[in-house]
Amino acid sequence: MNYGSELKRVYEACLPFVGEGKVADYIPELAGVDPRRFGLSINAITGGTHSVGDANVPLSIQSISKVLTLAMVLPHTAGSFRRVHVEPSGDPFNSLVQLEYEGGIPRNPFINAGALVVTDVLIARESNPKQAILDFVRMLADDSSIDFNYAVAQSELATAHRNRALAHLMRGFGNLKADVETVLDVYCHHCSLEMTLEQLVRAFGFLARGGYSWGREVVSPHIVKRINALMLTCGFYDEAGEFAYRVGLPGKSGVGGGIITVLPGHFVLGTWSPGLNPKGNSMLGMRALEMFTENTGLSLF
Amino acid sequence: MNYGSELKRVYEACLPFVGEGKVADYIPELAGVDPRRFGLSINAITGGTHSVGDANVPLSIQSISKVLTLAMVLPHTAGSFRRVHVEPSGDPFNSLVQLEYEGGIPRNPFINAGALVVTDVLIARESNPKQAILDFVRMLADDSSIDFNYAVAQSELATAHRNRALAHLMRGFGNLKADVETVLDVYCHHCSLEMTLEQLVRAFGFLARGGYSWGREVVSPHIVKRINALMLTCGFYDEAGEFAYRVGLPGKSGVGGGIITVLPGHFVLGTWSPGLNPKGNSMLGMRALEMFTENTGLSLF
Amino acid sequence: MNYGSELKRVYEACLPFVGEGKVADYIPELAGVDPRRFGLSINAITGGTHSVGDANVPLSIQSISKVLTLAMVLPHTAGSFRRVHVEPSGDPFNSLVQLEYEGGIPRNPFINAGALVVTDVLIARESNPKQAILDFVRMLADDSSIDFNYAVAQSELATAHRNRALAHLMRGFGNLKADVETVLDVYCHHCSLEMTLEQLVRAFGFLARGGYSWGREVVSPHIVKRINALMLTCGFYDEAGEFAYRVGLPGKSGVGGGIITVLPGHFVLGTWSPGLNPKGNSMLGMRALEMFTENTGLSLF
Amino acid sequence: MNYGSELKRVYEACLPFVGEGKVADYIPELAGVDPRRFGLSINAITGGTHSVGDANVPLSIQSISKVLTLAMVLPHTAGSFRRVHVEPSGDPFNSLVQLEYEGGIPRNPFINAGALVVTDVLIARESNPKQAILDFVRMLADDSSIDFNYAVAQSELATAHRNRALAHLMRGFGNLKADVETVLDVYCHHCSLEMTLEQLVRAFGFLARGGYSWGREVVSPHIVKRINALMLTCGFYDEAGEFAYRVGLPGKSGVGGGIITVLPGHFVLGTWSPGLNPKGNSMLGMRALEMFTENTGLSLF
Repeated sequence: MNYGSELKRVYEACLPFVGEGKVADYIPELAGVDPRRFGLSINAITGGTHSVGDANVPLSIQSISKVLTLAMVLPHTAGSFRRVHVEPSGDPFNSLVQLEYEGGIPRNPFINAGALVVTDVLIARESNPKQAILDFVRMLADDSSIDFNYAVAQSELATAHRNRALAHLMRGFGNLKADVETVLDVYCHHCSLEMTLEQLVRAFGFLARGGYSWGREVVSPHIVKRINALMLTCGFYDEAGEFAYRVGLPGKSGVGGGIITVLPGHFVLGTWSPGLNPKGNSMLGMRALEMFTENTGLSLF
Repeated sequence: MNYGSELKRVYEACLPFVGEGKVADYIPELAGVDPRRFGLSINAITGGTHSVGDANVPLSIQSISKVLTLAMVLPHTAGSFRRVHVEPSGDPFNSLVQLEYEGGIPRNPFINAGALVVTDVLIARESNPKQAILDFVRMLADDSSIDFNYAVAQSELATAHRNRALAHLMRGFGNLKADVETVLDVYCHHCSLEMTLEQLVRAFGFLARGGYSWGREVVSPHIVKRINALMLTCGFYDEAGEFAYRVGLPGKSGVGGGIITVLPGHFVLGTWSPGLNPKGNSMLGMRALEMFTENTGLSLF
Repeated sequence: MNYGSELKRVYEACLPFVGEGKVADYIPELAGVDPRRFGLSINAITGGTHSVGDANVPLSIQSISKVLTLAMVLPHTAGSFRRVHVEPSGDPFNSLVQLEYEGGIPRNPFINAGALVVTDVLIARESNPKQAILDFVRMLADDSSIDFNYAVAQSELATAHRNRALAHLMRGFGNLKADVETVLDVYCHHCSLEMTLEQLVRAFGFLARGGYSWGREVVSPHIVKRINALMLTCGFYDEAGEFAYRVGLPGKSGVGGGIITVLPGHFVLGTWSPGLNPKGNSMLGMRALEMFTENTGLSLF
Repeated sequence: MNYGSELKRVYEACLPFVGEGKVADYIPELAGVDPRRFGLSINAITGGTHSVGDANVPLSIQSISKVLTLAMVLPHTAGSFRRVHVEPSGDPFNSLVQLEYEGGIPRNPFINAGALVVTDVLIARESNPKQAILDFVRMLADDSSIDFNYAVAQSELATAHRNRALAHLMRGFGNLKADVETVLDVYCHHCSLEMTLEQLVRAFGFLARGGYSWGREVVSPHIVKRINALMLTCGFYDEAGEFAYRVGLPGKSGVGGGIITVLPGHFVLGTWSPGLNPKGNSMLGMRALEMFTENTGLSLF
């Protein structure tokens, strides 16, 4: 497979659609992003890294960071993880409803409530959780320049009414141990991470390599299987089924317009286009990924 | 991979658990099944068919049949299928709730409401839909002895209050064209199909072979990708996430205790044990499948 | 209180609004009603009967009939009525959702599901339930000419998809004893009753008179209290709170545009205007009733 | 009517049941209340005040205070109150679900979310809202000794996780103007008010007297009608229908075991027994009130 030419073919077929979708505008830092940014980058196990378009411009990775905190936490939760379920949320509305019906146990670690619990577990394990997150992602991407965007984190914190509601509700159910504001602070910081597509596909390489990053086992194959399964069933909010149906790869999107996907044993493929569809996932990103898997026949299924 | 010895290893490790779970008892025909039935059968692309245990005893395939009717209908629905969504249901309760909130469009083709719509589409296409289903499954399994169990179909029809409720609700929304009783009749018959595990893994071979069955293309690779994706995200009711997380294979379960799974390009693997867990999926079947994928490392992820 | 002049005052103040709202059009018989029909009629304990406008034109009483069947059944259900709750439904959507969450027990006897159970109880008690209903309402109104509109009943039966769904769901839960079609037949007939406003306020007189009708105790004061309480809390679907807040009288509306209200110890007051508001209650009727209670100070509160 | 002897009759018939129900124990101050406290007090328009049992022991009025803050706010909200609905909540679960489905507008002013909005309106109107509440209740009860229990208020604030969740959610929807902690502080203080039954029935006298308290109009009859209607349809959480059905009086309960009821034009009747039923309303209080209205025939209906 000539990954480079396949990427280029998809990129060019997508150019007429650049700018489609609606850029997230709930905080000024995201609203100001150029809606015409578009890039793809692939990190192939047998074939190196290839990129087209805006693959070296930093983007706000937002919810994509939830995969990283999960990878930090999951190996240390013995047996099944009783504080978060592993089922798709399936709710067109916000997860507050399910959270209440189900006694404060979030549906999965990728909805906000679940990611807050993951952050809470991380806080209990790490003396300096924000630094630990930075260390982990810098190690994975082999790039010490990666950092939070502190202005984005502050804006998120100031407008996080709904996440505060989720956190207080879970605390009422006893499923949040640390102080609500402490959890939100760490959470909003890891969501504010800025990385380029090339840094992202490097950092997520361990999910295509059975847990290995730069020759070292970061997590076991057993954990990789679970993370990839969760990305497939829960990585795209209530559009996870649609993404599996059309693209057929485990993946995770962020409201900044980034998407990271994995074909275990083969590659990590990332896209960036800030315009979102009504379900909050990058419109052009999903289009490009569907095209790539349909053209190449490379998908899970 | 020596599939035969791997199957045997799983089978023996599972023997102490034979009989676990609760046999479905809402109709006498299912209630009377021996709870100690247990078998595994694999149809490997490069490695032939291997079986252990009760692989040649007919079982009531029930909801597993929904994959077959979907495969008959999906190639003929141009573009996206607007009468059924492709999202996990995510509802711990019955789908009636979501069906109402979402205007009579079922969440996916594997919940009962969705399968009723698929059956409705089939009825519109076929002059003799029940015979067409028999022809299709006999062709796939290369076995003309496969038949409905008419007593099971009649029992299901007599107790199908909730399916009638679903069907009338969808008819009220205009999402069912044929008469409710006609749809239920065809639906209850295809659910009553009796097949052995060996017949099942043969019949589902096309989902591991890019759509080919006995050297002939039954459906396109494009359709195979979609069916396998749907089995992964929606094949186990509200336990689909758990199944993906623990087993990591597309699959479909039936209330008769059968489970069919697929690793595209590799194999079809079926299990049968009538005892169900509280979510309605075969308890020992899930245990055996998790063991198989953990032992062999063979899963999607 | 000069009821006659108060009615006239309200009637005249309402004339500019005649025709507001949307006439029910789901069956041709209702769709064909003149949207400008408007009348009021009062049956006062100390003050006789007074009417203005279309008080002697038959209207389709529809859900108002649910009060009558409840009055036939309630005295014979010993102790609390375990097959129907007595709580407001509070659901902006249809009651199917609650019915499912709450195990097939309808929220109250005035939502469709609850009225179907009441009808089912009636069927178990009466050898000829439709005739028994006619006998009861003719006795109450002292008018043997009152009858079903059989064409309306047939149209309702033909389009009752959602009520069929409700009935089959309850049957699945064991909360419907008679055959679904039998229940729907009796239900659609009692909803098709045609009465004039003057017949209606006479028929409902027993709810203002502690259970007495034409000098004879029809139901006990104990039952009257319960029926009036139910009309106040549940008589207007999910607008019951609004009706209590603005009008302050127990009442029941029908999709034909009729409303019957009661001030116990004082009067029965009925209105008719076919135009409905988005919640399915007569728009001008609610306006007239609010005006009447605000002008006169006559309400429960 | 000899109110004194009727009260005594009910009191004696209830004595065998003293201690039934479960005392609220989510904060130590409530958990420590003697479960055998039991009292009744009536303030009759034509007949003075009568009491039996613990009518002069202070109780924590809790949610009963929501009627007082509503009475302070309602006259000043021109036209309909767009920030709170007036419908029963009808949800067996907490109102968080409905609050989310309905865009942050609480179902009614007596569920916690609605009372928080009422408090928010009060904060916008008053420079010292806590003092204004004290002034209002002291004036109504003609007793300057009434005060908050500051220890109770602090305990409530420390455990108010779910109310914080509600408040942050509403703030996210823009339906809370003041700072969340400010609103909670005022809210928890008014809930901590301590009053005896005799103080309570005096304070609520204006709802039986068309808005007059000690000869002065506190609110208009128009507002009284609305408050009483709201108490009838929404005063007992998801047991409002049951209370109207069995007791037939507008009323409001508190988790401290107090209940206040009103028969407009006749009396205010209060009960206190700390044991709650599973829906959170005083078990013996409801029993006593049903007995009183059944014995005397005095109810709305």
